[in-house]
Amino acid sequence: MTTTSWVPVTEGSDFPVTNLPYGVFTPEGGSARVGAAIGEYVLDLAAALDDAVFAQPSLNAFLAQGRPRWQQVRARITELLTDEAHRELVEPALHRIDEVRLSLPFEVADYVDFYASEYHASNIGRMFRPDSPPLMPNWKHLPVGYHGRAGTVVGSGEPVVRPCGQRKPPQDAEPTFGPSQRLDIEAEVGFVVGTPSSMGTRVSTDEFAEHVFGVCLVNDWSARDIQGWEYVPLGPFLGKSFATSVSPWIVPLDALEPARVATPPQEPEPLDYLREQQSWALDLALEVRLNDEVVSRPPFDTLYWSPAQQLAHMTVNGASLRTGDLYASGTVSGPEPDQRGSLIELSWNGHDPVKLDDGSQRVFLEDDDTVTIRATAPGIEGTRIGFGEVTGTVHPARES
Amino acid sequence: MTTTSWVPVTEGSDFPVTNLPYGVFTPEGGSARVGAAIGEYVLDLAAALDDAVFAQPSLNAFLAQGRPRWQQVRARITELLTDEAHRELVEPALHRIDEVRLSLPFEVADYVDFYASEYHASNIGRMFRPDSPPLMPNWKHLPVGYHGRAGTVVGSGEPVVRPCGQRKPPQDAEPTFGPSQRLDIEAEVGFVVGTPSSMGTRVSTDEFAEHVFGVCLVNDWSARDIQGWEYVPLGPFLGKSFATSVSPWIVPLDALEPARVATPPQEPEPLDYLREQQSWALDLALEVRLNDEVVSRPPFDTLYWSPAQQLAHMTVNGASLRTGDLYASGTVSGPEPDQRGSLIELSWNGHDPVKLDDGSQRVFLEDDDTVTIRATAPGIEGTRIGFGEVTGTVHPARES
Repeated sequence: MTTTSWVPVTEGSDFPVTNLPYGVFTPEGGSARVGAAIGEYVLDLAAALDDAVFAQPSLNAFLAQGRPRWQQVRARITELLTDEAHRELVEPALHRIDEVRLSLPFEVADYVDFYASEYHASNIGRMFRPDSPPLMPNWKHLPVGYHGRAGTVVGSGEPVVRPCGQRKPPQDAEPTFGPSQRLDIEAEVGFVVGTPSSMGTRVSTDEFAEHVFGVCLVNDWSARDIQGWEYVPLGPFLGKSFATSVSPWIVPLDALEPARVATPPQEPEPLDYLREQQSWALDLALEVRLNDEVVSRPPFDTLYWSPAQQLAHMTVNGASLRTGDLYASGTVSGPEPDQRGSLIELSWNGHDPVKLDDGSQRVFLEDDDTVTIRATAPGIEGTRIGFGEVTGTVHPARES
Repeated sequence: MTTTSWVPVTEGSDFPVTNLPYGVFTPEGGSARVGAAIGEYVLDLAAALDDAVFAQPSLNAFLAQGRPRWQQVRARITELLTDEAHRELVEPALHRIDEVRLSLPFEVADYVDFYASEYHASNIGRMFRPDSPPLMPNWKHLPVGYHGRAGTVVGSGEPVVRPCGQRKPPQDAEPTFGPSQRLDIEAEVGFVVGTPSSMGTRVSTDEFAEHVFGVCLVNDWSARDIQGWEYVPLGPFLGKSFATSVSPWIVPLDALEPARVATPPQEPEPLDYLREQQSWALDLALEVRLNDEVVSRPPFDTLYWSPAQQLAHMTVNGASLRTGDLYASGTVSGPEPDQRGSLIELSWNGHDPVKLDDGSQRVFLEDDDTVTIRATAPGIEGTRIGFGEVTGTVHPARES
């Protein structure tokens, strides 16, 4: 019943009616507002639901309303789009996605980036500390993470200017200043917080779905040379803070119920606060394209720490959540060489450059390169749903 | 002329008319609004200036108006408070500070914490890496910093709940979970950004006063045991993110002109983008009290990297600034043992506990301890101005 909409949905579309992700769009001549994607269309929710909470350029007001309201709205949109009786009333509120402008769908409160893929963390360890164990001693005890810059989280398609900064290759005696020569991507999955929490309290793994509204794609652009010189002892800073791109559509958790899988075995057993009653690992299949060519297919279900464990960890010290908080998984890499979510891994730090169809090869990104990340997941009633895409093109460094 | 207000100001007050710091206050039975401190009073600016930008519970709208407006408003307030002719009209807009509630004066956009005191960084290095040089190789080339959690920056007087988390002392085989046993303070100075900047552009050291509105005091509470276990390789996270306290008054840069001193000699000479035409080092005298007893007097003029250098570094990669961004200096420590801005330094990691007048001693904070940071600076026309205080009391850890 609910798998079929009166809106025409092409076979293989990211947005069957079982998905209904939320975004912010601006129709020609109109103002930015909240919509839900269906097939090739976006439904203007302020118009269709006659609710001012959607007549805003961000999802935050809706996110703050909490899970019962999220579920109510999702049920109502599903009803409107599947029951032919509503067609006449609803059709005028549909806009073709290719005729609107999509923007960053929410105001980012705090941005946290985790490091939760064992394959990614091990690859980095093997490359940079070949004589030590690939994982740091703390890695299997807690989801390592850090705060990023919320103010430079941008929407898909926003230009990414190659950053300048200090870098000091090991063979040089002194650092020099200039454009990053090791500009990289990180293919990640992001989680958007709706319901806030109070300072001094914790959010347990069980409460994940009460607080997290939905899931998006993230490209955490990284300047490896800047990062490599700056990061001891306080972590990444300017090597990351120049730009982080987020996909325009937030897929609600309710659409991802069929994508839930078991969190991989964790050994040693995590401390109590990190245990899950019911796993929130997700079977998402990511795809990374460099200039339209697929260079990697990272599997999200291989993530060592689940998003519910990340949330519980982030708040176990009493840190509060705010509506609009974004936390990302860290680079998603699988066990196979063509499942790695960053160029530094795909090229094994330059030892094995990525060969492209046009005959060129890449160790890191060149100016004008475009990187696009997509993902799909099992959806309700045997459908397959998609996340749309997050894309960005590298613009040359600026002299000042 | 401008040193004398018709408002009575006690000798030694933090708030002579040459200071005029801005804050947010709530009068009994009224709503939160912007005010300026004068002696024992706060001037209701929405009432005195008849300007709705001040009739808000945060300074952000005023901060966004930019430097020419900041200077205009300061000149006007000075005129109102020094010219007896305005007394009759202005007096009803004065409230006794001890009869209003002060709150966090601005909405924090991004929060960055630097590590800019050479004495502090060297002390930490000497304690934890006794066999290595006290400073990391990058430290004298760039102001090391990282992003903190903006959502847990709180106003002075807000309770600080002792955080729980994972910690693993070196002698233990496995981490355990529980309340932090090494809860510490960090006495810092914060800089509040007013004028934003665009992504992809840099803010030079010369543009510091165009972007930074003013200066406040910061206590960056730190759980050393949590931090020590988590921080490799991505830096501090839960060891810091549970709370950061900020003073209620933002002292405008214009009030601190007489406090400007030369940035200490920097060797090696910093890269071009970090050089200052005119130094923005500031001669602030900090004072740290533990349960009303002075335990340290950190001198801010010993800071290695000036706040203008910190700002230029933070944006050199093209990261944008937003109104409400806060960046803090990192712990301020001077060369003398009684000038150290954290307990871990004052007690030399427990080897030399801090002795208090009541006969007790401290290595780290106990429940119910209150920490208060104050500061003064040379003001206009030979006055001495103060920052008020940032205070916080440790509440016991919560079981869940």
